[in-house]
Formats: sequence, structure tokens, C-alpha cells
Amino acid sequence: MNTADLGLPVDVPSTALFTDQYELTMLQAALRSGTAERRSVFEVFTRRLPEGRRYGVVAGTGRVLDAVENFRFDETILGFLRERGILDDRTLDWLAGYRFRGDIWGYPEGEVYFPGSPIMRVEGTFAEAVLLETVILSILNHDSAVAAAASRMAVAAGDRPLIEMGARRTHELAAVAASRSAYVGGFHSTSDLAAGFRYNIPTVGTSAHSFTLLHDSERDAFRAQVDALGSGTTLLVDTFDVTEAVRTAVEVAGPGLGAVRIDSGDLLLLAHRVRQQLDELGARDTRIVVTSDLDEYAIASLAAAPVDAYGVGTQLVTGSGHPTCSMVYKLVARADSDAANAPLRPVAKKSMGGKASLGGRKWSARRLDEHGVAEAEVVGTGPVPAEFAERQLAVPLVRGGEVVAREPLDAARERHIAARAGLPMSAMQLSRGEAVLPTEQA
Amino acid sequence: MNTADLGLPVDVPSTALFTDQYELTMLQAALRSGTAERRSVFEVFTRRLPEGRRYGVVAGTGRVLDAVENFRFDETILGFLRERGILDDRTLDWLAGYRFRGDIWGYPEGEVYFPGSPIMRVEGTFAEAVLLETVILSILNHDSAVAAAASRMAVAAGDRPLIEMGARRTHELAAVAASRSAYVGGFHSTSDLAAGFRYNIPTVGTSAHSFTLLHDSERDAFRAQVDALGSGTTLLVDTFDVTEAVRTAVEVAGPGLGAVRIDSGDLLLLAHRVRQQLDELGARDTRIVVTSDLDEYAIASLAAAPVDAYGVGTQLVTGSGHPTCSMVYKLVARADSDAANAPLRPVAKKSMGGKASLGGRKWSARRLDEHGVAEAEVVGTGPVPAEFAERQLAVPLVRGGEVVAREPLDAARERHIAARAGLPMSAMQLSRGEAVLPTEQA
Repeated sequence: MNTADLGLPVDVPSTALFTDQYELTMLQAALRSGTAERRSVFEVFTRRLPEGRRYGVVAGTGRVLDAVENFRFDETILGFLRERGILDDRTLDWLAGYRFRGDIWGYPEGEVYFPGSPIMRVEGTFAEAVLLETVILSILNHDSAVAAAASRMAVAAGDRPLIEMGARRTHELAAVAASRSAYVGGFHSTSDLAAGFRYNIPTVGTSAHSFTLLHDSERDAFRAQVDALGSGTTLLVDTFDVTEAVRTAVEVAGPGLGAVRIDSGDLLLLAHRVRQQLDELGARDTRIVVTSDLDEYAIASLAAAPVDAYGVGTQLVTGSGHPTCSMVYKLVARADSDAANAPLRPVAKKSMGGKASLGGRKWSARRLDEHGVAEAEVVGTGPVPAEFAERQLAVPLVRGGEVVAREPLDAARERHIAARAGLPMSAMQLSRGEAVLPTEQA
Repeated sequence: MNTADLGLPVDVPSTALFTDQYELTMLQAALRSGTAERRSVFEVFTRRLPEGRRYGVVAGTGRVLDAVENFRFDETILGFLRERGILDDRTLDWLAGYRFRGDIWGYPEGEVYFPGSPIMRVEGTFAEAVLLETVILSILNHDSAVAAAASRMAVAAGDRPLIEMGARRTHELAAVAASRSAYVGGFHSTSDLAAGFRYNIPTVGTSAHSFTLLHDSERDAFRAQVDALGSGTTLLVDTFDVTEAVRTAVEVAGPGLGAVRIDSGDLLLLAHRVRQQLDELGARDTRIVVTSDLDEYAIASLAAAPVDAYGVGTQLVTGSGHPTCSMVYKLVARADSDAANAPLRPVAKKSMGGKASLGGRKWSARRLDEHGVAEAEVVGTGPVPAEFAERQLAVPLVRGGEVVAREPLDAARERHIAARAGLPMSAMQLSRGEAVLPTEQA
């Protein structure tokens, strides 16, 4: 096992601990009742997008594949479970030999989704598939929430680069996954070294107010930074007085100064003022980077301002108001017996309090209008109509327990750009509204 | 190094990667300008509580101590930094020998805090202290956000136990920290095996709708579960028809059935109806557990309902609307030279856009009224007045690089109960309002 493939910047013995206890007690009961080996189909989907959002973004798929591959109950974990007295010996023995040997299909990473989209489908015995519920949902719910926010910010930013700098606002390892998701959603770089280490995302960074305050004068601080990092560096100009700082910055670094960063105040006003000042000082190529609690709306409001790059932290890693998706993992079909050829029967919880689900294994495709623009997410349980046969949204991810869909992160990033471009124009609106595609039952 | 102490259920070579790149480039520049060894004081504080919240809860302190202790640049990390070309050789050499040798003071875990409270103070050379910014903020911002939500839920739940079950709604490792923070804030157990493994938090779990749907009838499913787990188990009764399920559950398990769980529908109505039915069936001791997107308000609304326990997921791990705190890590004082006895000079960013901070190393204490109830958070930079000398809020956490404040998680949990009990009654109101204590500058 290559632990560097676990989606973490750390060594992990197994992802099997990322499991809710009831999955194991259900396993024990199913082993006892003789239903554990019934062939089962679980699907990941969401009943709704976050309020006002036009589309969702699938992210975390690559991390799910790593997690499934490394989902093993080693002696440490088994010892813990034994000590707790949660499970009987038969169940512990079964877990000792566990590895997922079934199939997983799903929307490829970066694809967009809508309410009811069958985002991922896990097929295997009940026993092997039920155990993956928590880890799959953890990853997809977190990563997709961040990617959705990132995508909206990328739309708002247009051609200007976005820097992810939210590590300090979320759990230290969630931050690494957030950087990854932000990259899928359209960000360009990260301040987080762990994300650079693990996912090879470009890393950037300049200085904080503390660096200026450490020195006896702002000029000393700027000189120290330029001496150490070159005139291409980014100087932080809002520790005391912005106008004075910009003047000092160009004096110290020369007109070849890489960039200045503004981290507080009226960014719109300051960007215009600083641009004018830089131009007057001959620093026409010096870029302006803005940071300071930006979200997609703040980014959009700076579209007409002379801003060259945005650094985004809190609102990115917290999904801009929606820190999690509401994806669920539901049994939609299962066999009546554990015979290998037993037919699958659709199953579903009865409607109650809005938690109904549609039984049956699903296919899905995006119906296009005559201009090639998506007009509906079509989801069906029967045979796939000929017009959609070659254009199903789900692709094979795992076959017989073997991962078959590894890809570089850039592939997901490019796929997202293409998928978003295939949506109606209204998808790019930041204003609240309905899902931009209706989901139709075929 | 005991990797089990890292706050993760996994082996980690070092926490030093959980760092924003600018901390390293600032280090390089400070080494070059000769300011790196200036004695410096950084403080963690927040300018505001989340809107409407009455108090904050410090959580994650124990994880910060683990992170600081294991913050080392091993050859893998140094090789990565070297390859990226981010740093010069002198800086890389410096990092190779890094370990934090300074002092850390802070509010003990579980304590409450207010805007301006000096939650943590890191003292050392600029070089050694600046590097800890991101990892300290990541941990405190995430964990304290979850603990604050947990505390409000615990107030709403009164004597009824709260079960943390949000792992599927957040990053798989953030989930482990969230369970820990929920426990500090007043939760009783978790569904997350990793949290049980790592922090010895009691784990619980029963079954999902999929388990019922796997079987040929609800009765078969209940029988399977009771056979495997005993009649003390919790049966999920809302897959089809609740009334019928409750009848079947008691028939199968007998009146000694442990509990039933309701996961959808009108919980208030259903709880009353199910209680009455259970009583009529002689299952007077069978408990009712409710789950389904609960938050502190939903919990409070069920106060008069015959509910025995609450399971909380999404809203807990996402901080009930506030998934992060706004804690910052600011240089508040530093020496003018690197002489060991150089006096500390207060420093602060100039006010602009609300990001001003108060310079100088701070002490704090809680002023009590004649009944022993807290009436103000007093924060000062000068000598500590005699009345507060013995009652400062901050305690030593690290001395000369050695952790001096390890404690069991239960100590933090009990401290939080006591700290909350010392606040004015209005702290327990769930309604939006101002911080329940004013912060006064002494």
C-alpha cells in the first residue's frame, strides 16, 4: 500500500476506522440472519442543492477511490473493536478478511450534478457495500461543498487567478482536501504546503502584518523581504498607511515589484487608488492582490476594479455558506437471496417527512438542446434509451475491487470547466435561483 | 514520538506541513535581515463572536499541544521544500534543526471566551513562533466552532444525552476532531469509530433504513437485529409505517426493547404517539431516540416531548451555521534586538477596515459580581491588579518547549460545564443576542 495515495499528507494504516458503528452492527446482524451476501446496490445522491444554488460540483472522487482501496481492518483496529465488545468473533473474523471486491460507478470528478443525480453507485454484497457508507459520504459531502463554492468564485473571477488560503479556518486535514477541491473548482494555487506536497498544487505566499511589525520600520521590512525573495515578491501594503506603503514598496523594490497585497479596508476604492499610484510610479506591471474575507459576491463586485488576483480563505473552505452537501447513501436494490444470479429487486424507504427515495439501479444522462446546451438531467431505472446509451454520465470507477479510473487532478479541473460550459448561461448567475437543469425521470 | 498523540487516528510524520508558505518565506527574510531571533509575542484572539452567539468555547487546546510537540521538518518535508525552490539553503538548514523551545500560555480547554479574550499566547523568537500560526489557528478555529454549537445543543437538551453522528457530513478527519469537540461541549457519545479509537469517546450505533430494506420484511430485519445484538438494541421504526413498526418491534424484542429511533417526519407528534403506544404495549422503559437534521432549536422544541436521546449530525459538525471561528494570530509585542534581555515593545497594525488589534502582551480575568456570577471579561496589558493575580484565565501550556498541561478529555468537558455555569443566566438563551459578558480593557 502506498500511503501517499490516501488523500492525506500523512501515513494512514487504514481508512476503515472512518466508519459509523452501526455499519458494523448491521453487518453482524446480517451475517447472522443470512442476508449479508445478498447482492446490493447503494446509490449516492442528494434530494436538493443548497438553497439558491444552480448546480453542484462532484469532487472527492479520487479520494474515495484511495479510501476504498485502503479500507482494511488491521490487527490494531480489530483489537480496538474486540476490546470495546461491540462485535462477536464471527464478525471480527469476517472483517479481518475484508476488502471491497465489488463495482463502483460514478460521475467523474469535476462533473456537475443536480437533485436526484445518481452521483455514485456501489454494487456488491450488502456486507461489503454497507461498510463504505460513512467514508464515501464524508469525502463527497465535504469536497463537493468546497468545489461548488470554488466554482462560483471562479465564475466571478473570470480570467483572474484565485489563491486558496483558508487552511487556518478549517481542520488542518480538511484544509488539504479543501485545497484539492478548490483546484478542481477552478482555483489556481494554494498557500497550504500540505496541499502542495500531497497534490502538487502550486503553492504561493508572501508575508503577514507580523513581518512588518517585527521590523523597526515598514521600509526595513520591505527591504528584508525584497533582499530575501527578490523584487518579484508580493509586499503587504496595509499595515499602516497604504499610500505611503506603496511609495516605499516601489522605492525599495523598484518598478519591477511583483505585486502588492491589500488585506483590509474598502478594496474597491483602494485597488483603484493603488493602481493609479503604481502607474504614476512607473510600476505598471506590478500586480494588485486582494484578500480579506472574500466570497463570490465580493469577487464579483471587484470585477471592474484593477485587481489582478484574489486570495480567498474562510468562505472557500466553509463552502460559502454551505459547508456540506446533503448527499446520502441509500440501498436502492438488492437480491432476494445470496445466489449469485438472484435478480435485483428495487427497494426504497416510504415517503415521510421528505426523505423518500426512488428505488432501483439508475442510469443518467444530460439531454441537450439543438445548440448542444444541456436542458435536463435525465434519470431512469429501466433500459437506457438508445439516444443516451453512449452518453451516460456515470463511468466505471472500480471493477471487481480494482480501481480503474485514476486520473491526474488536472483532468478533473478541466472536466469541470467543460461541464460548466455546457450548462445554460443562467448557471453563471450568482443570484439565488433554482437548479439550472430540471431532473426528469425517464 | 508517539504518533497516537497527534490528534489523528493515523500515523503522521510531522505537523509541520500544516503551514502556509508565507510563514517560511517570512522566516527566510527575517533570517536575512537579522530580525529572526527577536523575542516575540503572538496572541490568538477573535474580534467578534459569530453573530448572535452569547459566548465562545475554547476547544482543540490538547490537539494544539500535540501539534506543536510534533512540529518538525523531517527529510521528506525538507526535500519537498528544496525541490519547490521556495527557500534558500540557510533557511532549510535552520528548519532542519527546528523545534519550538518557547512558552505557550492559554485558556484551558473547555473555558468560555469573548471578543478580545487572549485565548492563547505564544512567546519565543519570531522565527520559532511565526511558524505555528496556521496549525494553531486551524485547530482552534475548527474545534472551537464545533464545541460552541455542541454547548448550545447541550443546554437545549438538558439532562438528555446527545449522540454525535455527523461524520458523514464533514471531512473524515475533521469528523474525529468534531467528535472530540462535541464531547468537550457536552455530548455523551459518538457514532464515529475513529473518535472512539483515538479519544476513547463512548461509541454507539444501531441500524439504517438499508438494513430493513435488505430483509424480506421489517419483522425479519428486527428479528435479525435483536438476535444479533440483543433486545437492548435500538430499532429504527420509520422505514415504512411507524405505528406498525413499533408494534412489530415490541412483538419481536419484547417489552424489554432498549430503544426505538425515529429519523423523519414530525418528531414532536411522533414522539408523543410512539411513547403512548410503547406504554400501552408495556414497553415503558423502551427509550425514544430522535435524529433528523436536529439543531439546538429543534432540540429545544422537543423539550416537552417524551424523547430520551438526540442524535445530531450535520448541524453539529458544521457549527450550527458557524463552521469556523474568526480567531487570528497576531504579533502583539517584540524586542528591538535579538539580545536575550531586550525589552518587549507593543506593536499593532493600524486600524483600517475593522482589523485593528491591541498591542502588548495581555493578561485576562473574569470579574465576578457579589453572587459569584461573571460580569465582565477583563483584559489588560500592564501589571495584573492584585484582585486578579490569583485568578488569571490563561494557564501555562508549554514551558521552554515542553508541554506542561496534558489532561484527560473529561477534564475539559467538566471545565466547560463549570465555566458555563459561572456565566449569567442569559448565556443559556438560544435566541440571538450580544456576548453575555462585556470585554473591558483594564
